[in-house]
Amino acid sequence: MYGIIATWRMALEGITEAEHMLKDGATASDAIEMAIRAVEDFEYYKSVGYGGLPNEDMEVELDAAWMDGDDLSIGAVASIKDFANPVSIARLLSREPVNNMLVGAGAEKYAHKMGFERKNMLTERAKIHYHNRKKEVQELELKPYSGHDTVGMVDLDSQGSMVAATSTSGLFMKRAGRVGDSPISGSGFYVDSAIGGATATGLGEDLMKGCLSYEIVRLMGEGLHPQEACEKAVQDFDKVLKARRGKAGDLSLVAMNNKGEWGCATNIEGFSFAVATETQEPTVFLVKFDENGRQYFEKASDEWMDNYMKTRTAPLVRK
Amino acid sequence: MYGIIATWRMALEGITEAEHMLKDGATASDAIEMAIRAVEDFEYYKSVGYGGLPNEDMEVELDAAWMDGDDLSIGAVASIKDFANPVSIARLLSREPVNNMLVGAGAEKYAHKMGFERKNMLTERAKIHYHNRKKEVQELELKPYSGHDTVGMVDLDSQGSMVAATSTSGLFMKRAGRVGDSPISGSGFYVDSAIGGATATGLGEDLMKGCLSYEIVRLMGEGLHPQEACEKAVQDFDKVLKARRGKAGDLSLVAMNNKGEWGCATNIEGFSFAVATETQEPTVFLVKFDENGRQYFEKASDEWMDNYMKTRTAPLVRK
Repeated sequence: MYGIIATWRMALEGITEAEHMLKDGATASDAIEMAIRAVEDFEYYKSVGYGGLPNEDMEVELDAAWMDGDDLSIGAVASIKDFANPVSIARLLSREPVNNMLVGAGAEKYAHKMGFERKNMLTERAKIHYHNRKKEVQELELKPYSGHDTVGMVDLDSQGSMVAATSTSGLFMKRAGRVGDSPISGSGFYVDSAIGGATATGLGEDLMKGCLSYEIVRLMGEGLHPQEACEKAVQDFDKVLKARRGKAGDLSLVAMNNKGEWGCATNIEGFSFAVATETQEPTVFLVKFDENGRQYFEKASDEWMDNYMKTRTAPLVRK
Repeated sequence: MYGIIATWRMALEGITEAEHMLKDGATASDAIEMAIRAVEDFEYYKSVGYGGLPNEDMEVELDAAWMDGDDLSIGAVASIKDFANPVSIARLLSREPVNNMLVGAGAEKYAHKMGFERKNMLTERAKIHYHNRKKEVQELELKPYSGHDTVGMVDLDSQGSMVAATSTSGLFMKRAGRVGDSPISGSGFYVDSAIGGATATGLGEDLMKGCLSYEIVRLMGEGLHPQEACEKAVQDFDKVLKARRGKAGDLSLVAMNNKGEWGCATNIEGFSFAVATETQEPTVFLVKFDENGRQYFEKASDEWMDNYMKTRTAPLVRK
C-alpha cells in the first residue's frame, strides 16, 4: 500500500504527481518533498511559499518542517526569508546530527551555505493584498488575518516508510518573528512509521496548546482508525479550549496510518483536503456538517473546483 | 497544597524563595517567574540567561517559554539576544491574543517595544569558555558541547493554578538560530491545572521527537502518579530512540500534579533536581541508578553542594 494525504485543495496537483511517484516505487521522502514544493512554487497560493502573504512589515517569513517516521528525525525552519523551498531546507536539516531546528537569520545562513536557491518571495500580488488589507483596517489596529492555510502532508511508500512535512507563510499580518504550529513537533506534524502520521492547519497558537498531531498518532497507536483518532482529538480539544478560554481557534487535521487508511477532522466549515492512495484516486473532499453537527465528507464538485482556481487567480486591483 | 519542582541544582535558590512566596499566597505565575529570573540573573550558571554560553559565532541566543495551566495560554521566545529576562518576555507573550511565539529579530523588536531591559548577555567568563573550547577542538570540527542544562519549572499555588516555564541558552557552540525543546510546547514543557505539569532538560533534538512533557501530563491525566508517569514516558521513549536510531540523547524530566505530588525520571547519571512543597522543605535530589538499572533519589550531601558552587565559581583562565 502507498498513499498521501494533505490539508486543503491547494495540495491536489502535488499529491496527484506524488501518487504517480509512489506507484512507481519512489520513497515517501522524495514524493512528499516534490508535492510540498509544488505548493510552495505556485504563486497563486497565498499562504505557502512564493506568493505567500507577508507579515505586518510586508516581509514574507516562512516556516516549514520535516519528520521521518522511520527514525523520528526532525528538521525545521521558522521565520526564514527569501528562500524558494523551505521544505527542502527542513529535509536537509533532519539529517544533521544536532541543530535540527533553525530560525531567522541563522536559518538563512545555513540555507545560504548549503547552496539553496535565494528568491525574493514577495510577489506583486501579495503586495496588493498587503496594501488592500492595510487600507481596509486603517482605522483599526492591524490584526492578523483569519486565513491560515498551511499545507501539511503525510505519506506512506510501498516499503512502509512514512514522512510528514509542512510549509506555510503563517498568519497574514503576523508580527515579525511569529511562529505558529507548522514547524513545531507534535503540534503541526508528527509521524511514526510503526503507526502513522498526522498534520495540522488552523490557528497555530491554539493547535500548539493541544499537541494535536502527536495525540492523533498516539490514538492510532492505541488501535483507533485514523478517522476516529482525528475526530476524538479534535472534538475533545475543541471542548477543552471552549471550556477554558470561551472559544476555540480553527483546528483542522488529516492523518494516515501505515496501512494507508486515512482520516480528517475539523471544527470549521469549509475545510478541504486532498488524498490519493493505491485504492483512492486523487480526490479533493470538502468537510461539511449535518444538522446534528456531525461531520461528513463530500467530493468537491467540478463547479467548486473551477470556482476555486478562478478566485485564486482572478486579477487583483490595488484599492 | 502548593509546590514547585525544577530541573537541576541551579534552581535551588529560586525555588526556595518561590516556596516562601507560595506559602504567603503568591500566584503560581509570580512565584515561578521570580524563580526562573533568579537563575537567569546568576552569572555563574552557564546554560541559562546572563553568563549563558554562546553559539558558534560567540553570540548568546536565548530560548524561554511560559504556559498557564488554567487557560493553556503559551508564550515563547527563541533565538533572542541581549535581553536580561527571556522568561518575562515569554510571560507577557502568553497574554497576547495571537503571535504568542516570536523568534530572532522579531522577538527582540517586540521586547524592545514592550520596554524590557536590554543587557549584553555575554560575560567575560563565557568568552573564556568559548575561547578555551575553540582551542580544544581546533583540529576537529566545531561541535555542540554535550552540556545542555535548561532550567525548567512547574509550580502549583494554593488556589490550584499551575504554571510551567523554561529558560536556556541552549547548546554551547550551537549553530546560530538553533532552537531546542525548551520553547516548544509539549516537548520542553506542558501544564494543565486540571492535571499537572512537566518540563524537560537534555538533548532538545531528541526530546522533541517524543513530545515527552505532553506525554507525562497525559499519563498523569490517566491517573498515574507523577513518578510513574515520568518513568514510563522516559523509559519507553529511551527504548524507542535506541531501537530506531541506535542511541538516545539525554532525557531528564520533572513533573508535579495538582495535588503537589511530584516525580522525576532521567536516562543519565548525574541529573539533579530541586523541589519544595507545603510538606517538603526545599531540597536538591541527585538521581542515581542501582545495579539493576533502577533509578533512585539521594538527597545531595553538604559536600556535594559545596563542591557544586565551588566548581561553578572557580576562577577561569583563558588557555
